[in-house]
Amino acid sequence: MLSYEAMVRTIARYVEAFDRDDPGMAAALYAENATVEDPLGAPLIRGREAIREFYKMAMQAGVRLKLEGAVRGAGDSAAFPFVVVFNDAGQKRIEVIDTFRFNEAGEILEMRAFWGPANMHGFKSPA
Amino acid sequence: MLSYEAMVRTIARYVEAFDRDDPGMAAALYAENATVEDPLGAPLIRGREAIREFYKMAMQAGVRLKLEGAVRGAGDSAAFPFVVVFNDAGQKRIEVIDTFRFNEAGEILEMRAFWGPANMHGFKSPA
Repeated sequence: MLSYEAMVRTIARYVEAFDRDDPGMAAALYAENATVEDPLGAPLIRGREAIREFYKMAMQAGVRLKLEGAVRGAGDSAAFPFVVVFNDAGQKRIEVIDTFRFNEAGEILEMRAFWGPANMHGFKSPA
Repeated sequence: MLSYEAMVRTIARYVEAFDRDDPGMAAALYAENATVEDPLGAPLIRGREAIREFYKMAMQAGVRLKLEGAVRGAGDSAAFPFVVVFNDAGQKRIEVIDTFRFNEAGEILEMRAFWGPANMHGFKSPA
């Protein structure tokens, strides 16, 4: 069973990948056949290469992740609360909880992101 | 689709059920055929009556839930960070993230609790 400490290290590297604007670093944390559902209900993104493209798009806005509390580790999974902060000198931010399920090699097999319109703050409303 | 505000209200009533030590109030938030997995990897608890028994046991310790950040709402689901505080004049607490999936009637269909040994603080270690 993957240790809590190993899950926390992977989540720290995930945050660091955003600090470095490095989609390849984020994608490398995933298993080859991993899936990403971000946010819940969106079409599944499948496979490390598609996941790299997803992070390339996401990182174009220069966002940073700020952890908001302890990583919760349960069995082969972890959940953690954070805020996505946009690098636009403004107040744009999105409150998110991600859940990661890991394989025995410590790679992320499944990522699910919980956030929605009510968690988006400082965005202009559509005209 | 269930509104974010309706999910937040249900989570507030969930916290209130612990404040009142009322397992029936907690169980009434669930659908008749709901499942609870607490923590992740534990055997599923199925059905509202078994869920009431589960909360009856859980509430015998006089625990209270303290929310630690915004409820994240995504589609038919929500996730929220909180701390379970034990009513023992001590420092015992457990950091948890719960995810709730709702049906169209606004009842909880599926609850999953993310926490593990690394999230338990102030407990005596086994001798």
